[in-house]
Amino acid sequence: MSSNKKIVIIGGVAAGPKTAARARRLDPSADITIIERDTYISYAGCGMPFYVAGSVREFSHLFQTSYGVARDEQYFSREKGIKVLTGNEVTDIDRGKKEVLVRNVKTGEESRLSYDNLVIATGSTPFTPPVEGIELKGVYRFNHPEDAKNIREVLDGVQEAVVIGSGLIGMEAAEALREKNIFVTVVELKEQILPVMLDKDLADVLALRLEEQGMEFRLGHKVLKLKGDDGKVTGVVTDQEELDADLVIVAVGVRPNVELAQKAGLTIGRTGAIEVNRYLQTSDPDIYAVGDCVENTHLISGQKVYLPMATYANRQGRVAADNIINGPKSEFKGVLGTAVMKALNWNAGRTGLGEQQARDLGYNVITALNSALDRTHYHPSHGLVLMKLIVDRDSRKVLGAQGIGPGEVVKRIDVAATAISFGATVDDLAALDLAYAPPFSTPIDLAHHTANIVRNKLDGLAKTISVQEAKEKLDRGDDFLIVDVRTPQQFAPKHIDDPRVMQVTLSDIRDRIEEVPKDKEIVALCAMGIRSYEAQRIFEGAGFKDVKYIEGGLQAWPYDLD
Amino acid sequence: MSSNKKIVIIGGVAAGPKTAARARRLDPSADITIIERDTYISYAGCGMPFYVAGSVREFSHLFQTSYGVARDEQYFSREKGIKVLTGNEVTDIDRGKKEVLVRNVKTGEESRLSYDNLVIATGSTPFTPPVEGIELKGVYRFNHPEDAKNIREVLDGVQEAVVIGSGLIGMEAAEALREKNIFVTVVELKEQILPVMLDKDLADVLALRLEEQGMEFRLGHKVLKLKGDDGKVTGVVTDQEELDADLVIVAVGVRPNVELAQKAGLTIGRTGAIEVNRYLQTSDPDIYAVGDCVENTHLISGQKVYLPMATYANRQGRVAADNIINGPKSEFKGVLGTAVMKALNWNAGRTGLGEQQARDLGYNVITALNSALDRTHYHPSHGLVLMKLIVDRDSRKVLGAQGIGPGEVVKRIDVAATAISFGATVDDLAALDLAYAPPFSTPIDLAHHTANIVRNKLDGLAKTISVQEAKEKLDRGDDFLIVDVRTPQQFAPKHIDDPRVMQVTLSDIRDRIEEVPKDKEIVALCAMGIRSYEAQRIFEGAGFKDVKYIEGGLQAWPYDLD
Repeated sequence: MSSNKKIVIIGGVAAGPKTAARARRLDPSADITIIERDTYISYAGCGMPFYVAGSVREFSHLFQTSYGVARDEQYFSREKGIKVLTGNEVTDIDRGKKEVLVRNVKTGEESRLSYDNLVIATGSTPFTPPVEGIELKGVYRFNHPEDAKNIREVLDGVQEAVVIGSGLIGMEAAEALREKNIFVTVVELKEQILPVMLDKDLADVLALRLEEQGMEFRLGHKVLKLKGDDGKVTGVVTDQEELDADLVIVAVGVRPNVELAQKAGLTIGRTGAIEVNRYLQTSDPDIYAVGDCVENTHLISGQKVYLPMATYANRQGRVAADNIINGPKSEFKGVLGTAVMKALNWNAGRTGLGEQQARDLGYNVITALNSALDRTHYHPSHGLVLMKLIVDRDSRKVLGAQGIGPGEVVKRIDVAATAISFGATVDDLAALDLAYAPPFSTPIDLAHHTANIVRNKLDGLAKTISVQEAKEKLDRGDDFLIVDVRTPQQFAPKHIDDPRVMQVTLSDIRDRIEEVPKDKEIVALCAMGIRSYEAQRIFEGAGFKDVKYIEGGLQAWPYDLD
Repeated sequence: MSSNKKIVIIGGVAAGPKTAARARRLDPSADITIIERDTYISYAGCGMPFYVAGSVREFSHLFQTSYGVARDEQYFSREKGIKVLTGNEVTDIDRGKKEVLVRNVKTGEESRLSYDNLVIATGSTPFTPPVEGIELKGVYRFNHPEDAKNIREVLDGVQEAVVIGSGLIGMEAAEALREKNIFVTVVELKEQILPVMLDKDLADVLALRLEEQGMEFRLGHKVLKLKGDDGKVTGVVTDQEELDADLVIVAVGVRPNVELAQKAGLTIGRTGAIEVNRYLQTSDPDIYAVGDCVENTHLISGQKVYLPMATYANRQGRVAADNIINGPKSEFKGVLGTAVMKALNWNAGRTGLGEQQARDLGYNVITALNSALDRTHYHPSHGLVLMKLIVDRDSRKVLGAQGIGPGEVVKRIDVAATAISFGATVDDLAALDLAYAPPFSTPIDLAHHTANIVRNKLDGLAKTISVQEAKEKLDRGDDFLIVDVRTPQQFAPKHIDDPRVMQVTLSDIRDRIEEVPKDKEIVALCAMGIRSYEAQRIFEGAGFKDVKYIEGGLQAWPYDLD
């Protein structure tokens, strides 16, 4: 393939350089130019939290290849044969002439550059909420390497920090600050953390566990203004209180940079990001768009979504380059919204639809919440995982999966993402030949087991209520009985303190069955949901008519315990 | 469901108890009896290496539930309502009368027990090679809890150990001994370690890395006899040398226990294990068989295979119980032979077909070997993974995947196993929406990247040779040139010392292209295969006609380096 094609790429962070590098490998003769407004290019934006926390020691490490070479203009020129114009911005696209107008940011000098194919990879910009004091010193975003550099420089003097927004970026920022032993409060407008990533049931458990490790959350709090003294931030005022802060990180989401595309008359989608087809062409077939500035198609709902993720940027770069060099044949079909994060010693992840999303789309939803160990309990490094599956009751298809826990969550999310991609039913998921050895999993992996819980519920075998429903019943004063089937030794230190709670060890149920009133609604409870399911079946076998167990057990209980 | 069904289960280790427990949950009225010849039941056989190594401290922990209750006869009776007769063996099955003949192992007393459904879960027995000295003191198997108990008891006095057999059990035994700082030599008849699990290319790299950590291997060595002194083992004599040993573990595979089934006239498959249909019924539809005594169907080849794995035993127990209680509707469709292990700080895994297996089945095979990092290189805990994909060139379907490395291997094996289950092509694999965050993966995950290497090879873009082919060319005296494109700093300490090796840093290739002879076969080499692929494309772009790169780079090089 030898085209001498002129390829101009606007944006030099992730999707742009990836497109350029792949195009170069496909076509040694192509004339490839990346134009980047900034001075930084091809950096590891996702590495910023690790730089702030100190585990990435040098700022320069965020700009290096895995073999230690700086990914600068020189690198792109010498290793890739790609021109990079940093400090230059494209101010206009002349689609008729197939030229871009380039302005040197420093000198203001203008020039024109012609293209056969143009790639828009202009990325996104953090949203700045219009509140008073947002421009005070000590208030940062967390999206650009300079942000990380500036934050790390001032960290030593910081005692208390507030992070506004509990999305992925906000949580990563909060974690980095906690790692530096800074007291952190995260303020979130919604009633839960990670509102885009996790369903509330899991988010509430995660928040509780992170609070136990010193992170603070203010959920459902609206930031009204930032307070300052002598131009420097001193606090955050919400609709409910005033929080002291030497440092504030604002992370309330990003907006796609679409001005240039809009000005050029390219179609902007309903999400506000650039619309592209499955070949990643914009409404002008000679112009491609990739990365954080485009919208994606959700593989399950079919809907357009704006989910700016580094993995999509990189994979789209490859697809766009293929199509530019070989003609539009390579497809980027869509996304499942898979996302994972680490917060202190807990992991969290999701793929596919959330429970409410699925209901809103009209699915006849059934879910399961499973508290389980990620590997054999006798293996010294086992950890807890709470995994949730969202399933379509009619087709039995898996629609989504989520997980949290100190244990290995991400593998199960990847397995679910893979299965969902192929339209797997919950029965398919339960039958997967997943890898087992004691350091890695259990003979029936927790992903299998979660699928089996859904199957048991679908078959009418397992009858469950959620921790939320149980709590509501308690608070409402319902006349029912919770039978905690853990041992007395487990019950004593931590249990729900209510006269409607009765302790009967699982192994004693058959002997003590007469003590349990047959006419009452019985709700079995244990630590993880395994013994209480067993108890449900024993009670039913003994003729009890209204028996359930609490899904996920006390590990899923996000409320205070006595 | 209330049947009062009489279910008799022969075997109380894994598949048997699982069948019993599931049957009980399905049917509270069933009369369920497990008959076990041994005194131990429902134990964690896979935990034995951890008990020997000391990370499982108490022997009793191998017999406990995750909530600390001993899984003994009492437990099965009180928690599950299941009768367990330990110390009793079934000596005969009267299929006409639907009765089993039970003999008390201690007293010899005989009784008869009738069944509606019988479940054969008789497991497997380690194969004992017919060599002199096999009965000496200090010679152990590693399949029964007593083996682990006995080995741990004598460990303090052991200096040197020999493990015969480098399959999963042998390698796990060797690892446990190494963890106790015992000098271990593994003797293997085949020319590679883990011959059933790994292809030779990966096995050779793994063996080299384990040898660097003090494990020794004797490959292609045949054990002739064991030497002893005063009835106690002192050494192992192979066809090539004599090895001192205070302790010998024999792990040369297991055989299914089929005598009882055979005697009852049930069909034994060509693999030597009990034949079952997809409902896990034997040739007598009232008799089910599960676990290590049955053969399975390979999901890709369709062939019958004998792969005794704990995960199959457990998942089969569930299926058999479903079918016993609800009629034969639930299917166990087959297996991919997924297997993983940890050996010192390296992980290893496989799923699906190996390269040779695929060729033997007539597939038009293409493979890729990828040396990659499991997570972002700037994340402090990143690790190397060598991943191999085996793909059908015609259909582009993934047939198998293997991986080794100190990095996270198992997640990628599980993703591949899931994808293969649905007939994924290599293009599907590359497009999966897998989870990305720096502590877990890279924006383009190594599973994606490995798939992309196959795609680049299929498209004629990447031209590769294996490390084995490169070594053969060197040894054969071929007139060709290896261009090592790493930096001089990387080249100096470790490289292939040969006049046919030339160092040209990747970034200098464009400048120094005249120094490289155009008429010679050029083989680019780097650490992992990324830069050498780039180099291949640069040379080709400059008009070189015969250029390749070495797949996996020096990380895949299993030979000595200078």
